[in-house]
Amino acid sequence: MKWHEIPASAVKRLSLYLRGLHELAQEGVKNVSSRSLAKMLNVTAAQVRKDLTYFGQFGRSGVGYRVEPLMDELRHILGTDQTRPVVVVGTGNLGRALLRHKEFLARGFKIVGAFDVAPNKIGRKFGKVIVQHIDEMPKVLKEHDVKLGVIATPPEAAQSVADALCAAGVKGIMNFAPTTLQTPPDVTVRPVDLAATLEQLSFNVHAQR
Amino acid sequence: MKWHEIPASAVKRLSLYLRGLHELAQEGVKNVSSRSLAKMLNVTAAQVRKDLTYFGQFGRSGVGYRVEPLMDELRHILGTDQTRPVVVVGTGNLGRALLRHKEFLARGFKIVGAFDVAPNKIGRKFGKVIVQHIDEMPKVLKEHDVKLGVIATPPEAAQSVADALCAAGVKGIMNFAPTTLQTPPDVTVRPVDLAATLEQLSFNVHAQR
Repeated sequence: MKWHEIPASAVKRLSLYLRGLHELAQEGVKNVSSRSLAKMLNVTAAQVRKDLTYFGQFGRSGVGYRVEPLMDELRHILGTDQTRPVVVVGTGNLGRALLRHKEFLARGFKIVGAFDVAPNKIGRKFGKVIVQHIDEMPKVLKEHDVKLGVIATPPEAAQSVADALCAAGVKGIMNFAPTTLQTPPDVTVRPVDLAATLEQLSFNVHAQR
Repeated sequence: MKWHEIPASAVKRLSLYLRGLHELAQEGVKNVSSRSLAKMLNVTAAQVRKDLTYFGQFGRSGVGYRVEPLMDELRHILGTDQTRPVVVVGTGNLGRALLRHKEFLARGFKIVGAFDVAPNKIGRKFGKVIVQHIDEMPKVLKEHDVKLGVIATPPEAAQSVADALCAAGVKGIMNFAPTTLQTPPDVTVRPVDLAATLEQLSFNVHAQR
């Protein structure tokens, strides 16, 4: 099966498996059964086995999956077997939190640039990068061959930032701005609408039935 | 149809529609066709019509949907027609950004408490709330009848925080900690794993095919 034929829901669970395996590795666990991994992650063992079969991985009966080799393989599939450069645009509260978010580097993503237009932000250092004016972005994207961008600007600025990212070769955008972006077909956008996530919980909890 | 029978994917799009309608309302638009709304949000018009039919909403041919009344109805369905209280646990970079995230209040969520265990955080004000010790949490949850909680702690603290939230009556948890939580069946957890979102983009962009 070609990788682009794998259902997105299965790919999403690969991140989950990788995170679970990472927890196990830190505890010194060497082998794990699909059942244990599934239980830890609130999925079914059948699901784990099916998802990993897409990628040619088979646990051995009585031994299960070998934790470290499976992690290596999942990272290879996800493209994080090497560190990937990322830029963050917008250095408001959320953007600054992302610049300081240590989890990104631990999971294979290095923030190589941060951009804003506000004079009081430019030149300041958050996390490990110094904020630059957005006019410098194309140069930085080219220099580091950046394919991944994060938009944490106000919604009214998000589309023009997306346009600039795409023009400079970015192919994947994580969008925190609460607006829908129009991008070329070869660019993937993953929206992260935090208020919408609370709305979904509210539907479950507060909606009158 | 009972609301709990609506597919989660349709409920998720209600947040998207509400956001789109909000943008239109701000521009002074009074009526919108399913086609225009769909185009704005990168979905199909058929999808918009089908999703809204679940909830008994029908656009009138030639007029479309009335923006404000449809927003009111969507808020009613999502349970945000009144402001809902929320607490945030963990006031690291991400937690503090959430405390200052204005979008939450605009979308119907008021943060009524922030909690941590670190002495250097307690008593400090971020956004509109003063951080309290986590031991104060049950009292605050009860006082405001809080059903929604946000976990932004390190992963190793997240399960015990989830247990405390559930014990105090919280029914919906937004979890930023990169770990899977075990909760009672009547509690809904929405994980927000930011590094996993980048991994998914990396799969699309960097994975060798």
